[in-house]
Amino acid sequence: MEVILTNEAITAPPLDLPSREIGACVEFWGIVREQEDGRALTGLHYEAYEPMARREFSRIAAELQKKYPISQALVIHRLGWVPVGEPSLFVRVLAKNRGPALSFCGELIDLMKVAVPIWKLA
Amino acid sequence: MEVILTNEAITAPPLDLPSREIGACVEFWGIVREQEDGRALTGLHYEAYEPMARREFSRIAAELQKKYPISQALVIHRLGWVPVGEPSLFVRVLAKNRGPALSFCGELIDLMKVAVPIWKLA
Repeated sequence: MEVILTNEAITAPPLDLPSREIGACVEFWGIVREQEDGRALTGLHYEAYEPMARREFSRIAAELQKKYPISQALVIHRLGWVPVGEPSLFVRVLAKNRGPALSFCGELIDLMKVAVPIWKLA
Repeated sequence: MEVILTNEAITAPPLDLPSREIGACVEFWGIVREQEDGRALTGLHYEAYEPMARREFSRIAAELQKKYPISQALVIHRLGWVPVGEPSLFVRVLAKNRGPALSFCGELIDLMKVAVPIWKLA
């Protein structure tokens, strides 16, 4: 799984299919919302402990790959200040079938929130 | 839910957030694969019975909306000849949270395959 941590606004890279056996592409955008815990925000500031973030993403991807046989995954997480309405996270998963692609994507984000050292500060 | 049935190649419309409370955007691309039931294809031909396809999409969306409170959904299905490697289906779901967005997207496609009169011919 490719992991990109960037201070720039996220743009989705062009979709480049690795084989003619890809039948499903799932893309997820996590967007900063105005309301969080009842407070009105103008944005969030994200910080990462990058070496451990990359290690944890690799570990999670390897674990999920055993359950869900996908072909390729990409995670882009924006760091620094992200205004309301802009994405802080982009995930793309390519697989032969949609079931594994959707499950991989959902569980990746669930596990990321638990294990990957990326913090948000309002 | 907006439903677009088109003979043109699918392109994702620009993402236009309806509110500052959208935290999740799930996008799904269903792509024609080379191998189907052991046969090597160059593409698939899709046909729809359009009035009923639109009715069934509306019915499914209304049903899923009760389970998963999403903000907006869009389905684009390509009809006619779709070459291997090109998308025949695009789904975009916007919601406050990722759980409902991912579930809505996955179940929408499951139910579509069962109930919406769109056929593929190799």
